[in-house]
Amino acid sequence: MAKNTTRAEDYSKWYNDLVNRAGLAENSGVRGCMVIKPYGFAIWEKIQAQLDIMFKETGHQNAYFPLFIPKSLFEAEEKNAEGFAKECAVVTHYRLKTDPTDKTKLIVDPEAKLEEELIVRPTSEAIIWNTYKGWIQSYRDLPLLINQWANVVRWEMRTRLFLRTSEFLWQEGHTAHATKNEAIAEAEQMLDVYTEFTENWMSMPVIRGKKTESERFAGADDTYCIEAMMQDGKALQAGTSHFLGQNFAKAFDVKFADKDGKLEHVWATSWGVSTRLMGALIMTHSDDEGLVLPPKLAPIQVVIVPIYKSAEELEQVSIKANELVQKLKSMGISVKFDDDDNRRPGWKFAEYETKGVPVRVALGPRDLAEGKAEIVRRDTKEKSVVAFDGIENLIAQLMIDIQENLFNRAKQFRADNIQKVDSYDVFKEKIEKEGGFYLVHWDGTAETEALIKSETQATIRCIPLDSVEEDGKCMVTGKPSKHRVVVAKAY
Amino acid sequence: MAKNTTRAEDYSKWYNDLVNRAGLAENSGVRGCMVIKPYGFAIWEKIQAQLDIMFKETGHQNAYFPLFIPKSLFEAEEKNAEGFAKECAVVTHYRLKTDPTDKTKLIVDPEAKLEEELIVRPTSEAIIWNTYKGWIQSYRDLPLLINQWANVVRWEMRTRLFLRTSEFLWQEGHTAHATKNEAIAEAEQMLDVYTEFTENWMSMPVIRGKKTESERFAGADDTYCIEAMMQDGKALQAGTSHFLGQNFAKAFDVKFADKDGKLEHVWATSWGVSTRLMGALIMTHSDDEGLVLPPKLAPIQVVIVPIYKSAEELEQVSIKANELVQKLKSMGISVKFDDDDNRRPGWKFAEYETKGVPVRVALGPRDLAEGKAEIVRRDTKEKSVVAFDGIENLIAQLMIDIQENLFNRAKQFRADNIQKVDSYDVFKEKIEKEGGFYLVHWDGTAETEALIKSETQATIRCIPLDSVEEDGKCMVTGKPSKHRVVVAKAY
Repeated sequence: MAKNTTRAEDYSKWYNDLVNRAGLAENSGVRGCMVIKPYGFAIWEKIQAQLDIMFKETGHQNAYFPLFIPKSLFEAEEKNAEGFAKECAVVTHYRLKTDPTDKTKLIVDPEAKLEEELIVRPTSEAIIWNTYKGWIQSYRDLPLLINQWANVVRWEMRTRLFLRTSEFLWQEGHTAHATKNEAIAEAEQMLDVYTEFTENWMSMPVIRGKKTESERFAGADDTYCIEAMMQDGKALQAGTSHFLGQNFAKAFDVKFADKDGKLEHVWATSWGVSTRLMGALIMTHSDDEGLVLPPKLAPIQVVIVPIYKSAEELEQVSIKANELVQKLKSMGISVKFDDDDNRRPGWKFAEYETKGVPVRVALGPRDLAEGKAEIVRRDTKEKSVVAFDGIENLIAQLMIDIQENLFNRAKQFRADNIQKVDSYDVFKEKIEKEGGFYLVHWDGTAETEALIKSETQATIRCIPLDSVEEDGKCMVTGKPSKHRVVVAKAY
Repeated sequence: MAKNTTRAEDYSKWYNDLVNRAGLAENSGVRGCMVIKPYGFAIWEKIQAQLDIMFKETGHQNAYFPLFIPKSLFEAEEKNAEGFAKECAVVTHYRLKTDPTDKTKLIVDPEAKLEEELIVRPTSEAIIWNTYKGWIQSYRDLPLLINQWANVVRWEMRTRLFLRTSEFLWQEGHTAHATKNEAIAEAEQMLDVYTEFTENWMSMPVIRGKKTESERFAGADDTYCIEAMMQDGKALQAGTSHFLGQNFAKAFDVKFADKDGKLEHVWATSWGVSTRLMGALIMTHSDDEGLVLPPKLAPIQVVIVPIYKSAEELEQVSIKANELVQKLKSMGISVKFDDDDNRRPGWKFAEYETKGVPVRVALGPRDLAEGKAEIVRRDTKEKSVVAFDGIENLIAQLMIDIQENLFNRAKQFRADNIQKVDSYDVFKEKIEKEGGFYLVHWDGTAETEALIKSETQATIRCIPLDSVEEDGKCMVTGKPSKHRVVVAKAY
């Protein structure tokens, strides 16, 4: 077997190889669209399930809106339309017919041209706000708190599995409120939900902040975001929550009567995370051997591999293994006993290491005779021989420890790769040589922001919510600045 | 409030009104596409969750394949392509641009024409089998048992909420096997799964059968189906499971090496159910007052409505109501205590009747003083005053009773509306006047089948799997027949 590409050798190739080797996803026969393979999809299902619980706990309900948006609706909110126009897949016809020159081929039937083109949703504000118009009449109908799990399409020229694909899966929340403050509170609440999810479930620390005006969602008055650091020091925007003001309410004329009967436009938010989180998860924890998964999102949390030379030995080991399987299952721990006779233990060890299974238990007759078992944790690769009696409690504790260790490790990595810089020359040199995140003073203008981007390919990731006020000077222009912003190259 | 349209007055209008009134779905701003509203989507989520469990219990894994299918892949399996060509939404462009004649409008950018058109999936065999080609090399890769939850698009000229929409949600299973028999067994197993689901979860009895050749899925060698009877006597195809032979394996050249290294084409199945099941569920049980839901699929199984005149009384009732809420929740019963002060009890009673909540409990201070509560079951509208102590056990039993009663009632209705007929004249008269299902002898030819359809609009729904062999004569041609088939008008 060829040696795996390491992160140090070629980070980008390491990532692509890993996504393939671990059976997470692959490129499809359709340009820019991926196939999410069963193991990758099982992780996405865990992400979905937990987020769905958190959305419902905060009062949201799921619904489903059409895949297509008629062009006239799409263009109603101008900034939003402008922002997405360049990456829209457009349906123009509704029928194929047999090619008259070759009976085995089909051609688009020119007589089946749509009167109005349909946009495949790149995001659903337009179709949803057009619908909300019929749902909202009075303050009694507010707040309206809805989420949708869906596929969306944004035509991308350069794609990468999970990180940037023309079609991706996501959730998009769309809420309507009676007051501006309530809408802002909702946008902030959802940023909290995303933070709790990424930190406590993905073990991925994030910086919470606001986007600059030029990096805002098209159609938003404010975009909140969470930014994570990948192992190559680049930033990945892991989730966004937008305060949309009254922009969509005005574009679609959605008004409500308040308690005094006065008509007002409603206030809106939208917020989303996508299968991009899969890319973030992979790049935050994995190592040169393969995937590393936090236990809370691992489809298989524990694998038991039997070590044996004969059918009798396998039978003997199986009895003990199945006892452990039952115990772990009753504790809510997902476990696989891999007694596939076609593969040797060494192959299995490598396979589950590649797949990032948090804990591996090896059980052989000699171990068992001594009342012991070998246990290996995936995060540290630490191997230990432990008493088989009570091993289930040890494993349960490991689930907690690995989850925490991954978070702490990622947080330490981030701390080691984030620095304050005050000189633009130093910044330019460092961002090129070292990568990582930089806390810098910025004069708040779009011109300076654009200059930094064009000269260094780095962007202002966010204005952190917890930034401390300090007197500083913009590292580029020397103009006064009160807060440091986070600058980094990004996915 | 206007009186509801009854089933007897106008069945079709009754259905449409009910779907709207109960907050299940509505037509969208996109021709033929629906919006699934939160309450409707909550029912669909219950359907999905249970089916997903059953698919996984039978060894299937979920995955996700692209929304788009390049035209050249789509046309590879000829029959399949031919079958769906007339209802395909086609993406031809990937960009919009500002209309030079009106800056507020967008037009399709003629320079962004795709080299090859993309079909929005009407079903995913083509893209999936193109992918399986890379996944299947040897017998060790088989069986491959995969399911996908997705949206699909089939352009429809005449649409009805849930029953026939241009975009719908569904699951599609796609499996690959080493032998013909194993593939047939899989197709039959999935029909069993669908039967178990529709009968035990939806309380909807189904007839299990095979489609005639002309009613088969395009590209299948055999199509198994389950057919349900709606309250207007029409049939609704609730699920299909296809034995695809080697058709797709040949079209996409998917071969596996058997244990002796010999290369063979694999055998395939596909199977699916869709949001159409929502229409079936609604039309099987609901009455003139509103939706009637089997408890296992009801988002709210029990609603508690407080009866009070003062804040003190509400507080008093709330204490007891919350006790009951806790007890029911701990028993796994979903319950809502509706203490909304803006609505009167009568309004709430009507609302939850419309929404099909299986059990309603009314709690007032006088009842409570006597240690009693009023309980109403939705299916029979039976009202009783019962002891409050232990009411949770009575409710738990009602969940079982209502689930069973709905099934038995639907089964009785079907028995009352299915009959054997041997004369075509009698059949023609009866199907027109009485509707319902007919068990008739048919000579097995496509010509006779087409004649029946053109003269009566009724179709052969299926050849039942449990049909008893008997000597008969085709009701149309008098030619010999060994089995009766089910004929009915259908959705």
